[in-house]
Amino acid sequence: MNAADADGALGAAAAALLGDRRLIIATNRGPVTFATAADGSLRPRRGSGGLVTALGQVGRHVPVTWIAAAMSEGDRRAAADPKLLRDAAGGEDAIRLRFATVERSVYEQAYNVIANPFLWFLQHQMWNLPERPVIDAGVMRAWERGYVRLNDAFASAILAQARGDRQPRVMLHDYHLYLAAEPIRRARPRAILSHFTHIPWPPSSIWQTISPTIREGIAIGLLANDVVGFQTDRYAHNFLRMVESFVPDARVDYEASTVRRRRRTTHVRTYPISIDVETTRRVAGSRAARRRADQLLGATRERVLVRVDRLEPSKNILRGFLAYEALLQRHARLRGRISFLAFLVPSRTGLREYGHYGRQVQNIVDRINARFGRAGWRPVQLFYENDYAQALAGLSIADVVLVNPLVDGMNLVAKEAVIVSQRDAVLVLSETAGAFDQMADGVLAVAPADVVGTADALAAALAMPAEERARRLAKLRAGVEREEIGWWLRRQLEDLAEIAGGSS
Amino acid sequence: MNAADADGALGAAAAALLGDRRLIIATNRGPVTFATAADGSLRPRRGSGGLVTALGQVGRHVPVTWIAAAMSEGDRRAAADPKLLRDAAGGEDAIRLRFATVERSVYEQAYNVIANPFLWFLQHQMWNLPERPVIDAGVMRAWERGYVRLNDAFASAILAQARGDRQPRVMLHDYHLYLAAEPIRRARPRAILSHFTHIPWPPSSIWQTISPTIREGIAIGLLANDVVGFQTDRYAHNFLRMVESFVPDARVDYEASTVRRRRRTTHVRTYPISIDVETTRRVAGSRAARRRADQLLGATRERVLVRVDRLEPSKNILRGFLAYEALLQRHARLRGRISFLAFLVPSRTGLREYGHYGRQVQNIVDRINARFGRAGWRPVQLFYENDYAQALAGLSIADVVLVNPLVDGMNLVAKEAVIVSQRDAVLVLSETAGAFDQMADGVLAVAPADVVGTADALAAALAMPAEERARRLAKLRAGVEREEIGWWLRRQLEDLAEIAGGSS
Repeated sequence: MNAADADGALGAAAAALLGDRRLIIATNRGPVTFATAADGSLRPRRGSGGLVTALGQVGRHVPVTWIAAAMSEGDRRAAADPKLLRDAAGGEDAIRLRFATVERSVYEQAYNVIANPFLWFLQHQMWNLPERPVIDAGVMRAWERGYVRLNDAFASAILAQARGDRQPRVMLHDYHLYLAAEPIRRARPRAILSHFTHIPWPPSSIWQTISPTIREGIAIGLLANDVVGFQTDRYAHNFLRMVESFVPDARVDYEASTVRRRRRTTHVRTYPISIDVETTRRVAGSRAARRRADQLLGATRERVLVRVDRLEPSKNILRGFLAYEALLQRHARLRGRISFLAFLVPSRTGLREYGHYGRQVQNIVDRINARFGRAGWRPVQLFYENDYAQALAGLSIADVVLVNPLVDGMNLVAKEAVIVSQRDAVLVLSETAGAFDQMADGVLAVAPADVVGTADALAAALAMPAEERARRLAKLRAGVEREEIGWWLRRQLEDLAEIAGGSS
Repeated sequence: MNAADADGALGAAAAALLGDRRLIIATNRGPVTFATAADGSLRPRRGSGGLVTALGQVGRHVPVTWIAAAMSEGDRRAAADPKLLRDAAGGEDAIRLRFATVERSVYEQAYNVIANPFLWFLQHQMWNLPERPVIDAGVMRAWERGYVRLNDAFASAILAQARGDRQPRVMLHDYHLYLAAEPIRRARPRAILSHFTHIPWPPSSIWQTISPTIREGIAIGLLANDVVGFQTDRYAHNFLRMVESFVPDARVDYEASTVRRRRRTTHVRTYPISIDVETTRRVAGSRAARRRADQLLGATRERVLVRVDRLEPSKNILRGFLAYEALLQRHARLRGRISFLAFLVPSRTGLREYGHYGRQVQNIVDRINARFGRAGWRPVQLFYENDYAQALAGLSIADVVLVNPLVDGMNLVAKEAVIVSQRDAVLVLSETAGAFDQMADGVLAVAPADVVGTADALAAALAMPAEERARRLAKLRAGVEREEIGWWLRRQLEDLAEIAGGSS
């Protein structure tokens, strides 16, 4: 399907689902947040992040009402000012912006006790389980008085936007909103509701370690949706197993990938998310990015290895450097001839684990540079900033791109890399990244804890003949072009339209 | 089935499987080890540990040849002295003892690099995954030059005992011996081989993080057996999923619980291990144990809470104390009226993680005693020693027994507790213990990280009416009496006899 046809198909799917309705999307972080300026006025700021970028595309095709959490004082004030919201969303009505508002202390508990340190760590299996998590009274209070209430506030905000509509179409997103569907379902039994989880869904043995109140709350909360979507088949399977383990009155059909409970059916589906290929190409092709690519090339040796990640423990940055160190140790001829550019984006700097992890990363980079570096050659160049164009510039000049997360819902860097590459980059990709399921054929696979195997894969990537590199990259690129962000969205709209058609 | 009938059934199963053969059993740790005395002579020492105790019973029923690793210099010397081995095994030929011998450095790599720190941690999910494990050249070397060679040595020792027998019957045990079946199978294609894993089998997402060489080696190695046994259905399922994920030419049948590969079928079965009820009763009823029970009772308050565990991170000892602390905090009337006796057995004191964990345990015990203790009342009494009779004495006087492992292959303390209880103890049991699958109906279930839920369960257990306590305990006791160690063994022998019957 070419771009215009794909666009048409997306429009058709949206029309079939919505008729003259607006699509209601709910996410924790919205496309715009508000800060209070020195003069007391509210200043909008465009959000970044993969989810916002991806969903921002939706508004191009269908009228959207976008509900986000009021994360700041500015957001809370702006929530009451429709004109301000309208101006911030571009003045058009294509995207109508609304905030779900709770007291600051409620939000803090939902976000800073439950969602980010607890659910994120749990679902990425990042804990040292003998010691953490400890589900104490503070966590249970944050669950009940923070997370549950925030989800209720989202449901209320959504219902306020769906006034008069017995079948609103609602797409809920990610681990902040596992409980929002249930109160909507109670108020609108015939609503068309979907939830998509962007992060990994771990096996039941992980869920089994935590409080039944929380894990059953999440499972039953999600079952109030018509469609529950995941990045990969494995995550979808893990969800079905979890429901079977913890929701006694649910009937799981693995073949059909459905759950039947209390005379309702929930469809469990896989929708691997992707990038907006056109936007990625535009940014990578901008003058600024191309100039930056030239500068970077000027400061590198013959071979260029690149990684781009948030500085985040699940990205497995430490073992990536250990593998590079092993590579330099075993392949002396690479010394002085290769540059590892690591673009690391600051992330959650307030969390202790992230600070600790960042220091370990810095230490190992220092060690490698001290051990192997020499006048005029620094084995690792670290870029610690949030500069999207620069990161794409780095990917564009790479011979090899290393994407070795411990676990990752999808990983969009892997997809960006194959789109922007100017040098037929070889992608070394962790099997535990969601993206691996779509890209296995064209990448060199690594197991994330396997430092020896990762070093071997880097060596193989550097030694790969030009012809094979070109063949692999072309295949990967065609795959990403075909299954890009519009495809991700369209498949969900089509599934929902089918369900709406059956139930209306 | 009464005890005599059960004994008869076990004998019949053994006869059907063995004819006039000996059963060959292989374990890392054997029933006897040898130390070199001051005068240079070798002194045998009876081994302890659940596995040795359980398998020691086998010799009562069938003639056994038991192959163990030569763990010490004494073992290596004794290996060459059949008379010494015969004397050490009791002089009879009921248990014939043999050692599989490798150089000390080979054994060290297999045991102290792969089996205990690597496989044990992996299968109990005890890692802080962002940092560990790191599969570097040292680990891969220990795998190839330690673990693989030790397994080859076991295979050679087994084949030496099976000389002239085209269909030896061999039972391999646990995580030290995942690779022993393959070389035996090559030499004796019609051998009847089984392997039983005593520890948990984690989901594929855990195996997926480690080197393909290791995880595929393990999966393929185990498939050389006719029967691969696990403690619970969940572990068996996880193994099937692992095979499906990592062994491309294997065909998994989840319904039949079999794997078909290269024209051979492997049966994947569940055999929950248990205790020797008679021996447990005898030790608990000994004069020494009864006197100790009286002493302990004299030093406790009205209500007695007991735990018995190796001091081991997977036992979740820290959160157990946190739950007790929460209990004392919320139920002030319990203060001064309850004693928590914690019997902790020293374990792997040479491993850094265990030392660190032990210090944390001591710190929290000190904190609780300092916070709530008063003249004449110590809220927690810690017993740090290996004294089986004392531990059973403690269990016998408990009102409540806390068994809250993070994850546990089976957990025999839970079964001992219901056999020796003199006070209708209520068992608070982690859902993630293998024992939970058999005991769910009679226990109070807890999720291991759920400190609030564990405190609630302890409170509920302490408040439970006498009648309900008695009813639950009677049910649990009947279950353990029925499914005791002989039942565990008999079911395996019967399955193997059926396979041998089909293939001979």
